[in-house]
Amino acid sequence: MTSRTQGTVRVVGAGLIGTSVGLALSKLGVDVCVEDISPAVRALSIDYGAGRAPLSDDTPSLILVCVPPDVTAAVVARELESFPKAFVTDVASVKSAILTELSEKGADLTRYVGSHPMAGRERGGAASGRADLFFGRVWVISPTDLSTSKAIQAVENLALDLTASPISVSAADHDRAVAYVSHLPQLVSSLTAAALLDAADSDIALAGQGVRDTTRIAASDPKLWLQILAANATEVRAVLGRLQADLNSVAAALDRPEVSGSLSTLNSLLERGNAGVAKLPGKHGTKATIYSVTTVMIDDKPGELARLLTEIGEIGVNLEEIKLEHSPSSPVGLVEVSVLPAVEATLVAALAERGWKLVG
Amino acid sequence: MTSRTQGTVRVVGAGLIGTSVGLALSKLGVDVCVEDISPAVRALSIDYGAGRAPLSDDTPSLILVCVPPDVTAAVVARELESFPKAFVTDVASVKSAILTELSEKGADLTRYVGSHPMAGRERGGAASGRADLFFGRVWVISPTDLSTSKAIQAVENLALDLTASPISVSAADHDRAVAYVSHLPQLVSSLTAAALLDAADSDIALAGQGVRDTTRIAASDPKLWLQILAANATEVRAVLGRLQADLNSVAAALDRPEVSGSLSTLNSLLERGNAGVAKLPGKHGTKATIYSVTTVMIDDKPGELARLLTEIGEIGVNLEEIKLEHSPSSPVGLVEVSVLPAVEATLVAALAERGWKLVG
Repeated sequence: MTSRTQGTVRVVGAGLIGTSVGLALSKLGVDVCVEDISPAVRALSIDYGAGRAPLSDDTPSLILVCVPPDVTAAVVARELESFPKAFVTDVASVKSAILTELSEKGADLTRYVGSHPMAGRERGGAASGRADLFFGRVWVISPTDLSTSKAIQAVENLALDLTASPISVSAADHDRAVAYVSHLPQLVSSLTAAALLDAADSDIALAGQGVRDTTRIAASDPKLWLQILAANATEVRAVLGRLQADLNSVAAALDRPEVSGSLSTLNSLLERGNAGVAKLPGKHGTKATIYSVTTVMIDDKPGELARLLTEIGEIGVNLEEIKLEHSPSSPVGLVEVSVLPAVEATLVAALAERGWKLVG
Repeated sequence: MTSRTQGTVRVVGAGLIGTSVGLALSKLGVDVCVEDISPAVRALSIDYGAGRAPLSDDTPSLILVCVPPDVTAAVVARELESFPKAFVTDVASVKSAILTELSEKGADLTRYVGSHPMAGRERGGAASGRADLFFGRVWVISPTDLSTSKAIQAVENLALDLTASPISVSAADHDRAVAYVSHLPQLVSSLTAAALLDAADSDIALAGQGVRDTTRIAASDPKLWLQILAANATEVRAVLGRLQADLNSVAAALDRPEVSGSLSTLNSLLERGNAGVAKLPGKHGTKATIYSVTTVMIDDKPGELARLLTEIGEIGVNLEEIKLEHSPSSPVGLVEVSVLPAVEATLVAALAERGWKLVG
């Protein structure tokens, strides 16, 4: 394999993203030097194979800044100054605030292009780095008005070398989009989980899959999210306004459900919720498909799930989604198997014939 | 198999729950008669094997009312009157409002016991009915102050015959608990999904797993949820108050993130969100365990997932959770495999040795 990326790549910040980029480029034979404010983190990342230590005479062609959002602009500006021939990109999950700060600092924006690889994880650190982290993921590229086409091309080449899918989105459009699809869900998930703190343990005992799904991302790192929300405050605030107005209407309706208009307020919200979910794209970039779900009960022991899926493979049906749910009170698991509606009947009949317990 | 339930059981309402109960009891040899306001629905349910048509001289020992929440009390009262020797229970997902309505109607509460099997699905109807729907699920039993011990015993026996786990919770405690763990998540999920309607399609294109999980239950049936929210308005309103106050604080903080106290407001919410998620119980009723997650890339074709899980079975590691995620731009799937932290290293090493692509 040869790389599109030419010359030395300098990675600044050796956490999950920086280490993963270094691993992938090194595998392609690209010369990668890895820097980090923490010598221990840098050593760990290099030890994992992300690249080599920087040398005083390095002349990188491309610099990737993978540091927390609140210090990204300062590090990008420093790197642009220190390496006057290099193109520089970053991977922060907000883009406009960084661009504004760089303009204020008088940074050379011809050589800067923003990035946001959509490949984060709930856990970070060099030890979680993987060369294939970006495979098939969207890699947002946000050029400035001044970015040269060569600078943009260098970042696109990087994304392609990392097997990501580059798409060009302005900083403003990016920040509005992530306010909707990332920052808003994070806030409501945290709000919902925080509300559970008032509940008694005996109340929580009735929790099912719905509340689990709704609050999963509330487990994310507060330090990182504080920076993201602060840096994208204007866009997040704008998106929250609609939700706040809807919540106030719903609360008023619940205060007096017998008053005319209250039920239609609740109904409207529930119906708009249906419509909002339907807007989300499905797999492989297509519109969402409604799958048929079949639930199979299996013993909760090694090998059972594999046996089930082996047989589904033998039946010749392609799984669209799969979810494993444990019964709260029994040593069994419930496997929710989603398939295209056209093949559901085949699957159900074949599984029943093979003796699997279908549970509705 | 013999049943604990003795005599004839009359099921009123032949949707998902009613049909599933009928199927399960009929399999145990219990005499079940099925009634529904729609002759076509009743015929369908009987056709599936849920029981027989009612006869004019039926003298049921137990009546199970499985109709929508807003007509449950009326039907329960009618059944108590029509069958003066029968015990009556219902399956509505709210309990206090029904009890109040029954008291107002002067119904014989000695023979009534409320139920709420925690086994709903996003789709309903007789055709979705399964005899094993209740296996391992919690079955909330809410006796009235007047319920006789024989009435309570009859409903407990029913739950046990259906392989559910009966637990006794007062109507008031039940309604407060589900306000937290079911009705609140439903509302915030709908609120979040509704907010997405303002977003451009190009914004939505950046959607990842977080927003999908947060909005999954926003696809639920508005007709059913309108009744549930209206019937439990007081409890839901109380739970929403905390969330509303938190949201207002967060919105104010985002309005002026530079003002003293704004960042600590955001940080406090994110940290309380962490703590709220940690309260949710894990599998088999134990406290939540933090699992280690390994992601494996597989070809998106029949049999690949089965091959992976077969090998995980051979490695001898027990899966705690599994999630299949499709790349939005490639014909591959990412499988997130959750295992206990103690066995993660074993799993990762063995999978790598067998040539699986681990992607972080």
